[in-house]
Amino acid sequence: MSAAELLGQIADVGRDAWRGGYSRHVFDAPERELRTWFVERAQRLGLGVETDRNGNLWAWWGSPGPEAVVTGSHLDSVPGGGAFDGPLGVVSALEAVEALQAKEFRPAKPVAVVVFAEEEGGRFGLPCLGSRLMTGTVDADWARGLRDPDGVTFAEAIAAAGLDAGGVGADPDRLGLIGQFVELHVEQGRGLIDLGSPVAVGSTVIAHGRWRFSFSGQGNHAGATRLADRVDPMLPAAETVLAVRRLARGWDDARATVGRLVPTPGGTNVIASTVDLWLDARVPGVETPALVEEIAVAARDAAEGEGCELIISRESYSGDVVFDEPLRRALGEWLGAPPELPTGAGHDAAILAGFVPSAMLYVRNPTGISHAPDEFAEDADVAAGARALAEVLERLAK
Amino acid sequence: MSAAELLGQIADVGRDAWRGGYSRHVFDAPERELRTWFVERAQRLGLGVETDRNGNLWAWWGSPGPEAVVTGSHLDSVPGGGAFDGPLGVVSALEAVEALQAKEFRPAKPVAVVVFAEEEGGRFGLPCLGSRLMTGTVDADWARGLRDPDGVTFAEAIAAAGLDAGGVGADPDRLGLIGQFVELHVEQGRGLIDLGSPVAVGSTVIAHGRWRFSFSGQGNHAGATRLADRVDPMLPAAETVLAVRRLARGWDDARATVGRLVPTPGGTNVIASTVDLWLDARVPGVETPALVEEIAVAARDAAEGEGCELIISRESYSGDVVFDEPLRRALGEWLGAPPELPTGAGHDAAILAGFVPSAMLYVRNPTGISHAPDEFAEDADVAAGARALAEVLERLAK
Repeated sequence: MSAAELLGQIADVGRDAWRGGYSRHVFDAPERELRTWFVERAQRLGLGVETDRNGNLWAWWGSPGPEAVVTGSHLDSVPGGGAFDGPLGVVSALEAVEALQAKEFRPAKPVAVVVFAEEEGGRFGLPCLGSRLMTGTVDADWARGLRDPDGVTFAEAIAAAGLDAGGVGADPDRLGLIGQFVELHVEQGRGLIDLGSPVAVGSTVIAHGRWRFSFSGQGNHAGATRLADRVDPMLPAAETVLAVRRLARGWDDARATVGRLVPTPGGTNVIASTVDLWLDARVPGVETPALVEEIAVAARDAAEGEGCELIISRESYSGDVVFDEPLRRALGEWLGAPPELPTGAGHDAAILAGFVPSAMLYVRNPTGISHAPDEFAEDADVAAGARALAEVLERLAK
Repeated sequence: MSAAELLGQIADVGRDAWRGGYSRHVFDAPERELRTWFVERAQRLGLGVETDRNGNLWAWWGSPGPEAVVTGSHLDSVPGGGAFDGPLGVVSALEAVEALQAKEFRPAKPVAVVVFAEEEGGRFGLPCLGSRLMTGTVDADWARGLRDPDGVTFAEAIAAAGLDAGGVGADPDRLGLIGQFVELHVEQGRGLIDLGSPVAVGSTVIAHGRWRFSFSGQGNHAGATRLADRVDPMLPAAETVLAVRRLARGWDDARATVGRLVPTPGGTNVIASTVDLWLDARVPGVETPALVEEIAVAARDAAEGEGCELIISRESYSGDVVFDEPLRRALGEWLGAPPELPTGAGHDAAILAGFVPSAMLYVRNPTGISHAPDEFAEDADVAAGARALAEVLERLAK
C-alpha cells in the first residue's frame, strides 16, 4: 500500500474541530488508535512489533540485532497540527519495506521501522521525549514527573498505556543495535519550493530550546481596582512578546516565537495573578542562549516596571546538529545529488545524531506551512520520497 | 445562624486547587451544590423557595406578591475568585431574616431573598445574565445560544439543570412584584479602608462593558518559518494589551483590563493562527465607548502592521448607574449616616436600578482585593453588614 493510501487510512483519526487539523498527543485516544493501526499494518508486512521501555514502537524486518538499519518518525502532533508532520515518515517507511519485499530484496542486516513517542512535546512539554529518554539525554526521574495540562504525570500516562513507568530511561542496549538512522519528514519551510526538488537531504538542524517565563502580580477586580493600584502581569508579558520579535531581528536567521501564553485565572473581569508564556528560540550556531539572555533582560525590566515577579526556567535545549558527513555523501550519490537543506525544526534524528550516524530526507511542502492544517505534500512528491527511502534502506541493508 | 457561620458551611464548596480561591460557575457541580444548600437553609427559616424561568432562586417570607422587599446577591464566582463576592449578600440576607424572625417582626409586605444566576459571566461570558434576562435587557434567543468554553450552550446548561430552556427571557410579572431591591456586597476596592467605616451605601456604578478582539494570522512552525515570512497574531495582541493601559491612563478614573487572552492552537513550537483577547473597560459617565474606540484604532493599526485580520465584537455594555436617590437617603438616615461609595464593579442591583428603586450596602474589605483569593471581610464587619441589612428590611417591610 502506498504512503499516500496509508495516510488516507488515518485521515479521520484525531481531527481537532476547534483548532482545525489534528491533535494527537502521546498516549491520548487518537495517538493510541494510531499505534494500534501501525502495529496492524506492520504485522501485515510480517514485521515483529515491540514497544520499548520508553513507549517507542519498533517493527522489525528480520530478527532484532546489531548494525540495524532503522527508519521512522512519530505519530503524535502539535495541537491543531497538519497531516504529514510525523506520519509521513512512518507511512513512507512502511511503503519502502513493502516495495523492497515485492522485489524480493533480502536484507543482510536487520531493518526496523520506529515510531518515537512525544516528538512534539505537545502533551508533556519536552520535544523528542522518546528519543531523549532512549539516549539518556534527559533524566528519567525528571521525565516521569513531567505533567500535562490536566496535571497527569508522564509516569501515570505511560502506566495507563500498559507500560512500566519504572522502566523509563536510558536504553543503551537498544541504542547499541542501531547501525544508521534515517528519518524521512515533510519539509516545514519554503526551502524545497525555492530549490525546485521533491526531495532533499538534511544538512543541519539549528540549535533550539524552550524557556518558560512566569510573571506574577496581584489578581484583582477589573472594575474596582484603580490603574494606579495594579500589579498586572499581563503588561510585562505583552512587552516580552514584543521584545522577542524585536531582539530576534538582531541575530542572523534567528527564529523566536511566543505561541503559548496562559493568564491565570483567565477571567474577563479579573486582573490576572500570573501569566506564563513559553519562548521557542532558535539561532544557528551557539548563539541561542545569548538571544534568550537579551530577551530575559527585557522581560526582567518589564516585570520590574510593573512591580511583578518573574521566574524564567529552561525546559529544553539542543545544540546545533550537523548530520553525519559520510552518510550524507552516500545518500547524495544514491539519490542523484538532491539538494542539501538546513532546517530550523527539531527531529528525533537530530537527537540520535549525537550517538549513531543519522540522516534525514525532506519531502517538498508546497505551502511552506507546517504545524498547521495547511501543511501539505503532493501525492507525486510523497511517492518520490518513499522511493528515495527504499533506495537508501536497500543500499544500507544489503 | 450568623452570616459568618453560614459562610463557614460552604467554605469547602468549589475550591480551585489550580488557581486558588473558588471556581463556582452557573449550573456546574459546585454552584448546584450551593443552590441545594441555599434551598435547605431557606426552608429551615420557613421560607418558600422557587426557581424562576431564568434560573434565579427566590425564597419568600410570606406569600409572593406585589410591593415585595427583595434582597440577595449571587453564589457563582469568577474563576479563582474570593469567598465573599456574592455569597456574602446571600448569607447576610439569611441572617437578617432570622434576626427579624427572632424578634418576632411581622412584615407587612412580602420579603424575598434572591440568588441571581451567572452574575459574574464566568461561564457564558455575559455578567448579570439572570437579572438581565428577567428585566428583558438581553435577547432571550441570543442568550440561549451563548456557549461556555466547552461549547455547551446556555440553553443546554439550563435544561441540564432541570429547567425549561424555552421559558428563558423577560419576566415582567416577576419584576412587577419587586417594590425595592437592596443588595449587600463585599466592597471590591480600597474605598471603605480609606473611609474608616464597616458599611457604606452605594451611590453609583461606573459604566462598563466587554469587547472581544479576535486577531487572525497564519499558523506555522516556530522553527522553520523565517521571521520575515510570519503573520503572527500574538504580536498585535501584545501591542493591544499595552495600548489598553496607555490609553486608559488618558481618561479620568478609567479602568481597562485584559485578563483573558487565548492563542490558538497554543503550542509552544507553533506560531498561533488566532489570538482572542477580551477587553473589560469602564469609564465614569458616557465615555467608555470612546475609550474603546481609541483602543480599537490602536489594535487595527497593530493588526495591519503584521498583516493580520481583526474582528472586534461587543459582548456586553451597561451605562452609568445612579442608585435611587430617595432610597439612598432613607438608608443613610436609618443606618446613622454611613459613607456613600461609588464603585467600578457591576452588580445585579445596577441592572435592576433601571426598573425598580434599588440600593446597595457595601461591607469593608481590608485587603482592597477582590476577584482573587485575598478578598476578605472581618467577622465583626460581616456582622455589622447583616445588622444594617436587617434594619433596612424591617424599615422597608413594615
